Amino acid sequence: MDPDAVAKAFVEHYYSTFDANRAGLANLYQEGSMLTFEGQKIQGSQNIVAKLTSLPFQQCKHNITTVDCQHSGSGGMLVFVSGNLQLAGEQHALKFSQMFHLMPTPQGSFYVLNDIFRLNYA
Amino acid sequence: MDPDAVAKAFVEHYYSTFDANRAGLANLYQEGSMLTFEGQKIQGSQNIVAKLTSLPFQQCKHNITTVDCQHSGSGGMLVFVSGNLQLAGEQHALKFSQMFHLMPTPQGSFYVLNDIFRLNYA
Repeated sequence: MDPDAVAKAFVEHYYSTFDANRAGLANLYQEGSMLTFEGQKIQGSQNIVAKLTSLPFQQCKHNITTVDCQHSGSGGMLVFVSGNLQLAGEQHALKFSQMFHLMPTPQGSFYVLNDIFRLNYA
Repeated sequence: MDPDAVAKAFVEHYYSTFDANRAGLANLYQEGSMLTFEGQKIQGSQNIVAKLTSLPFQQCKHNITTVDCQHSGSGGMLVFVSGNLQLAGEQHALKFSQMFHLMPTPQGSFYVLNDIFRLNYA
């Protein structure tokens, strides 16, 4: 397994799904998954997707600047992303940083165990 | 164990040591530790500290804006930091994001297994 290739494929899949159909992210999380979104902790796939779909904007586009990844032990991978988020109708994009801890599934894929998102205010 | 308290104590210790005596960070890493610094991967405590002490500035001060943490499984903790870095003689501070994956030691403390650092360019 080339971790950089897995990380790149995950990041492309995650943000293209987020931008097209946030509800489609549900199967990337499990019941034990945790999202910290701007300091708010939300646990479990259903609650996480409810949070993401309730964010106060309809259309958005993530543009990725950097993707770093490392093995985390126990078959897991850490993926660290920086980029900017363009909201429909807003003049300026918002800079963000986000990290994912991916864990292997018995089916040979990965799910998101940990997810931490922060806007980087100027 | 209160993970937020551990994360806060770690962050204060890490950056105060970085700003006062970078070589003193050596005992926070082990041979299996990995640092990704602006995309460059460096493995092992000795190599990591060699990298940090060779950065092209002498004096700096980290100011922390946010600290988020989550349990990562296997007794580990993920710590996600945003802040700014003031270099001596520079007018503007540099914004950065950094994540640490802390793992428990047999002595009841933690070491840094994974460390990913990125400047957030404006």
